[in-house]
Amino acid sequence: MANQEVKLLGVWESPFSKRVEIALKMKGVEYENVEEDLSTKSPQLLKYNPIHKKVPVFLHNGKPIVESLVILEYIDETWKSGTPLLPQDPLERATSRFWAKFIDDKLLPAAVKFVGSKGGEQDVEEIVELLSKLENELKDKKFFGGESIGLVDIVGSIIALWIDVIQEAVGVEIFTKEKHPKLFKWSEDFMDCSIIKETLPPRADLLAFWQSRLQPSATSG
Amino acid sequence: MANQEVKLLGVWESPFSKRVEIALKMKGVEYENVEEDLSTKSPQLLKYNPIHKKVPVFLHNGKPIVESLVILEYIDETWKSGTPLLPQDPLERATSRFWAKFIDDKLLPAAVKFVGSKGGEQDVEEIVELLSKLENELKDKKFFGGESIGLVDIVGSIIALWIDVIQEAVGVEIFTKEKHPKLFKWSEDFMDCSIIKETLPPRADLLAFWQSRLQPSATSG
Repeated sequence: MANQEVKLLGVWESPFSKRVEIALKMKGVEYENVEEDLSTKSPQLLKYNPIHKKVPVFLHNGKPIVESLVILEYIDETWKSGTPLLPQDPLERATSRFWAKFIDDKLLPAAVKFVGSKGGEQDVEEIVELLSKLENELKDKKFFGGESIGLVDIVGSIIALWIDVIQEAVGVEIFTKEKHPKLFKWSEDFMDCSIIKETLPPRADLLAFWQSRLQPSATSG
Repeated sequence: MANQEVKLLGVWESPFSKRVEIALKMKGVEYENVEEDLSTKSPQLLKYNPIHKKVPVFLHNGKPIVESLVILEYIDETWKSGTPLLPQDPLERATSRFWAKFIDDKLLPAAVKFVGSKGGEQDVEEIVELLSKLENELKDKKFFGGESIGLVDIVGSIIALWIDVIQEAVGVEIFTKEKHPKLFKWSEDFMDCSIIKETLPPRADLLAFWQSRLQPSATSG
């Protein structure tokens, strides 16, 4: 795989962009990270993702792949020599895909609603319950992937960092050591991995980003 | 793979259940189909899909797998000897996964909205545009999978049968030979495949099902 071009169009605050970076680092793949500005979508973002016009866009030798879960599977299939993101057994692979999809299809919309209502009672209940389902799935494993991180852990970085940050920005607790002891321990172990530490944005920066988003606009009123 | 138990909990009117049946037939896998009654969810449905409580549930030697796209990948990985559902090349696999996800994440919610508004102008516009994107992707291929049907075609059975039926039930055209000539030709070729003909429900039955769902309740007013 010499002379190959691996490029990522992403934004620093996006959990979807960061998933791809984590996977590339786990595979030991060198890549160029192009920071996009979503307020003025670049010609190359529109060219390579005309359907959704969103980051991340992954470019491998000029060929675009979009949708973060699709990109992660592509990376796993293309760079076989690095750490596998999915297990080998078809049933275990199905279980990983199920939980990755659960996080994207259930937990993420619930987090969006939680932010939208600034911690409305019903939204708090829903997200706490969804996190409990993940806690229950984790059982006594260190990571969802077993002894090392895999697809569900990477996708779950949204819990370990983003959900932790938005609960502070909103000021309503949804994910704590008391509510979800196993998942909380998982998040600590996950955030302690060297690849994760060097890839995810600093917590303080992300918190400032979310606090400013949640503030009433300075020009309103 | 002797003495294996392959069972599907599904309902006849569900495109998600039918996807799994098509895939099993393409692989030449014998299975037992258990027709569920969604008005009174069975103990085994609740036992095997406690998270979503939905069909289809696929049981392989007693192990449950849920979410139709996850099941299709499982079937493709488990029965290698039959017709492949996904191509071999990682980039082509990513493209297939992208369009399968597009149908589920974009087209399906648009179809639900179209039915909900009984063909409201904005919803018609949206679904026609989404179908045009699929038309554009099809290009001059016979099937999304090339010369034979694959993952996107199977997932796309929702267009060939269900969308065709709901537009008749609602009485507003969204998918016709004039609007989407290539996709329409694809749907004819797809519906003409012997496995599809023997697996999908009779059009008249599905139309009657949707017409009765769209009728004002006999007990109301």
